Amino acid sequence: MYRLYATKGSGNCFKPFVTMCQLGIGFDVLEVDVLRGETRSDAYRAINPAGAVPYLVTEAGVGVGESNAMLWLLADGSELMPQTALLRAQSLQWMFFEQSRLEPFISPARFLGRIAPHLGVGREADIIAWRDKASAGLAVLDAHLSNRAFMLGDRYGITDIALFGYVHVSDEAGIDMHSFPNVAAWIERVRQTPGFVPLSALCDRARPFLADEHAA
Amino acid sequence: MYRLYATKGSGNCFKPFVTMCQLGIGFDVLEVDVLRGETRSDAYRAINPAGAVPYLVTEAGVGVGESNAMLWLLADGSELMPQTALLRAQSLQWMFFEQSRLEPFISPARFLGRIAPHLGVGREADIIAWRDKASAGLAVLDAHLSNRAFMLGDRYGITDIALFGYVHVSDEAGIDMHSFPNVAAWIERVRQTPGFVPLSALCDRARPFLADEHAA
Repeated sequence: MYRLYATKGSGNCFKPFVTMCQLGIGFDVLEVDVLRGETRSDAYRAINPAGAVPYLVTEAGVGVGESNAMLWLLADGSELMPQTALLRAQSLQWMFFEQSRLEPFISPARFLGRIAPHLGVGREADIIAWRDKASAGLAVLDAHLSNRAFMLGDRYGITDIALFGYVHVSDEAGIDMHSFPNVAAWIERVRQTPGFVPLSALCDRARPFLADEHAA
Repeated sequence: MYRLYATKGSGNCFKPFVTMCQLGIGFDVLEVDVLRGETRSDAYRAINPAGAVPYLVTEAGVGVGESNAMLWLLADGSELMPQTALLRAQSLQWMFFEQSRLEPFISPARFLGRIAPHLGVGREADIIAWRDKASAGLAVLDAHLSNRAFMLGDRYGITDIALFGYVHVSDEAGIDMHSFPNVAAWIERVRQTPGFVPLSALCDRARPFLADEHAA
């Protein structure tokens, strides 16, 4: 059984979570509250010295960081994996694109604009700049999805999950998704895939990390 | 035969280059001069609309971007690939770490501090901040390499190549490598692997892109 350390509402944490749900992999999930500073606590750093979420621990006790890397472990040998070397390279091309051209802009614009607006006071110019950069990345994605059902063609897989994590909350970052109709249609297609669960399911299922550690 | 579009001195471009050299894969390489703005030229954007290097084109004419993604195509089935799902996930964990915690800081500190210092005038505070952030990433890497010959253990592979690209030019970014003795020792071990070629070999081998296109 896997254990996932995650923070509610995080697009990165959602990726391994939905993958395990869709593949029927057994796991439990502990909520590490970023807003309360729990990722910087001694208790959490004893588990993941990098102090980041998500963090996935295997049954053998091996920890894996980086959300997109987790997908390659969880989906190995499943129908969610790209099936050829070229498709695997194209999958990774999009995953690195996501981590450099989308996530670094959608995530802070959403966090400071919506999740913790008291921290965003005085950062309005940054938030606008992040929205613009995210929109440039979304335009590339929209063009790519103009003639494909899913990221690599007809077949849903981990590339879609990696991109979906933050792209599907772009509206919460203040981005008008009407500008990206192909992305909006793809978001709906992903939501219809077998076993899909929404981001809110992570909150419903997680137990508090620090409470758990105190009880242990 | 593959075709690689690359810029001299680029740690990202070096990754697919040295991989093809070490695996004996046939390729040619065209030099796209970033300093002359050739990546933004119409001729280059007709090949790679993203206007970025490196860019790898397969014999079938399929283009692949993102240096680390290229390694998964080029090394597929070879001894440079991680051999289990867990090792593949750990490899990707380090590749995403490289692209978020090392490359974004080593690359601009080196570019503005060394390669194009006229562009770095007035950016001294940024350069110092980038060096500090790169050093924090190098400290994580140094701890990891304290008890391993290579990134994933005893065996050299694409994870080493991905990290080596920028880490081995950290000194050119103004970082004192004496602070990271395990990293420095690993750099020497990588240089001793079969078929290794230095960064300068890319320049020796490349033909100019625009001259090529004009001749075509």
